[in-house]
Amino acid sequence: MQVAILAHEKFPGRAKTAVGILRYADYDVAAVLDRDRPGERVTDHVPDVQDAPIVAGMDDVGDVDALVIGIAPIGGGFDESWRPDVESALERGCDVISGLHYFLEDDDEFARLAEANDCDIWDVRKPRDDLTVSQGVADEVDAEVVLTVGTDCSVGKMTATLELVQAARDRGESVGFIPTGQTGIMIDGWGNPIDRVVSDFTAGAVEEMILERGDEYDYLFVEGQGSIVHPAYSAVTCGILHGSMPDKLVLCHEAGKEVIHGYESVSLPPISEYVSLYEGLAHPVHETEIVAGAINTSGIEDDEDARAAVAEYESALGAPAADLVRFDAEAVLEAIL
Amino acid sequence: MQVAILAHEKFPGRAKTAVGILRYADYDVAAVLDRDRPGERVTDHVPDVQDAPIVAGMDDVGDVDALVIGIAPIGGGFDESWRPDVESALERGCDVISGLHYFLEDDDEFARLAEANDCDIWDVRKPRDDLTVSQGVADEVDAEVVLTVGTDCSVGKMTATLELVQAARDRGESVGFIPTGQTGIMIDGWGNPIDRVVSDFTAGAVEEMILERGDEYDYLFVEGQGSIVHPAYSAVTCGILHGSMPDKLVLCHEAGKEVIHGYESVSLPPISEYVSLYEGLAHPVHETEIVAGAINTSGIEDDEDARAAVAEYESALGAPAADLVRFDAEAVLEAIL
Repeated sequence: MQVAILAHEKFPGRAKTAVGILRYADYDVAAVLDRDRPGERVTDHVPDVQDAPIVAGMDDVGDVDALVIGIAPIGGGFDESWRPDVESALERGCDVISGLHYFLEDDDEFARLAEANDCDIWDVRKPRDDLTVSQGVADEVDAEVVLTVGTDCSVGKMTATLELVQAARDRGESVGFIPTGQTGIMIDGWGNPIDRVVSDFTAGAVEEMILERGDEYDYLFVEGQGSIVHPAYSAVTCGILHGSMPDKLVLCHEAGKEVIHGYESVSLPPISEYVSLYEGLAHPVHETEIVAGAINTSGIEDDEDARAAVAEYESALGAPAADLVRFDAEAVLEAIL
Repeated sequence: MQVAILAHEKFPGRAKTAVGILRYADYDVAAVLDRDRPGERVTDHVPDVQDAPIVAGMDDVGDVDALVIGIAPIGGGFDESWRPDVESALERGCDVISGLHYFLEDDDEFARLAEANDCDIWDVRKPRDDLTVSQGVADEVDAEVVLTVGTDCSVGKMTATLELVQAARDRGESVGFIPTGQTGIMIDGWGNPIDRVVSDFTAGAVEEMILERGDEYDYLFVEGQGSIVHPAYSAVTCGILHGSMPDKLVLCHEAGKEVIHGYESVSLPPISEYVSLYEGLAHPVHETEIVAGAINTSGIEDDEDARAAVAEYESALGAPAADLVRFDAEAVLEAIL
């Protein structure tokens, strides 16, 4: 399927959905829309993913099957400056795939255009109606459950999870991926958008996925969300921690990060405090341990400096760690499997 | 306003909404519906609230303005065995007030009857559409924020909060109540149903209420929900803890409780572990301390035994505690104010 990805003014640093799709999805990406960078190319900014031209808007995109909204701003609202591109896509008969909290199919104009041009709007973040509370039984599946947790949001939990899934499969292991966010769902084609479910059902929505896939694989790698110390998103993190009942945790971090993104008055506690918070909070429901770390060093240019950041993180964590995109996943995988 | 309260097969032990309304709301309760106890009276079971007859169904109730659903089962579903009572109420022109996850106004038959008989269905748990993520600024209000937290759900957090509000007001203090659940909302007539909001907005929905009332009072007492170690509801607890940014916590417990209600394989950790979990989890966002405890001793008949349970809890907690319904609130209030 050929797609264009909307990432206005945010590509690539604050467009994790766009970058995730470029890196992991089976879509053929025809163009990225970023009105700040027309004429540039994806690989000018992100070297290790499929390349595509960056254009100013839908008018500069050829025939595609779908337009994907590749940005997930805090709050998940729809930016009205994107409306012409979405309307242009629908007028051309393109499907639109969105992971925003604002459901495009509930927008009268978009719904009318989709109807008139016989195309679909897929609001990935719209949860199913039949979700309910957790029964506390995710630990009964055959698979060992591994969950990525984070020091903040947007530090690379989804990326770490998908890299580990790929590396484990490359070794012949039987591994299932449990997507919990809009990008993971777009990439894997299924999943519950945990940050959008009724808060009482947060743990239950994760548990339901673990039960669905847990007897088919030897390992389930669960995509984590947010951070247990995040002023806004910790509820989602906590629900995933208790609902998935993980046997092992991988703590994800971004090198050099000192404060919560968007909440600059909240300092990140020491790594050792994260370890005791995550393990201590999980313990009464299901005992678990942080067995490895994943660190995003994309902000560090020099490889030697990046390796030093990894070593420093390993030392703080007391467990093997790696930048799973930049370096080798073997030591981290060894600690998990 | 005259009301009847539906509490079939659950009154009083598992009907905390019904008991909360009998104890704290301004409604005049004409009858409680419990088909297991027709002919008995409320004060046969709960001595210290307004009395009312217990009847088998709406057919045995005289003129009332509203029927209140006084039970909140796990999952918040509607029990079809209640349908005749709800239909009978609507047919008589009674309003229906419900805190279930299942919205009665979305039930075609109920909606039709309400329309035909010119009465209202108030789904207390239906959240407003304009909620969003927390900004992490609840600590900027003038009021000192006090939050009740719990060792489990249904241990008396709402009751403790309302008792403390009343006791503090009796002393002339300026205190606002922040309701977070269906019963609290029914009692106080406003509030966001935190367990029903989009999980990403859990903290934000609490923050919004703190900001709305926080400059009008010297103290805000926030009704907590669930427990930080609850397999299903911990997400809601965590969101309230970070969203309300409390200055002080009151840990609520039920005497003799050993396992999580409905999740018998999950043992309650020691009280000291709750203290470190709640304080440790809050700390990176906003420093707080458990300054007092509230213990529900309603399962203990003898007053001396109940006092011994309070003393044991105080000792485990390392802070003053009381059964705020059964005994005096002064020592606990002293620790808070």
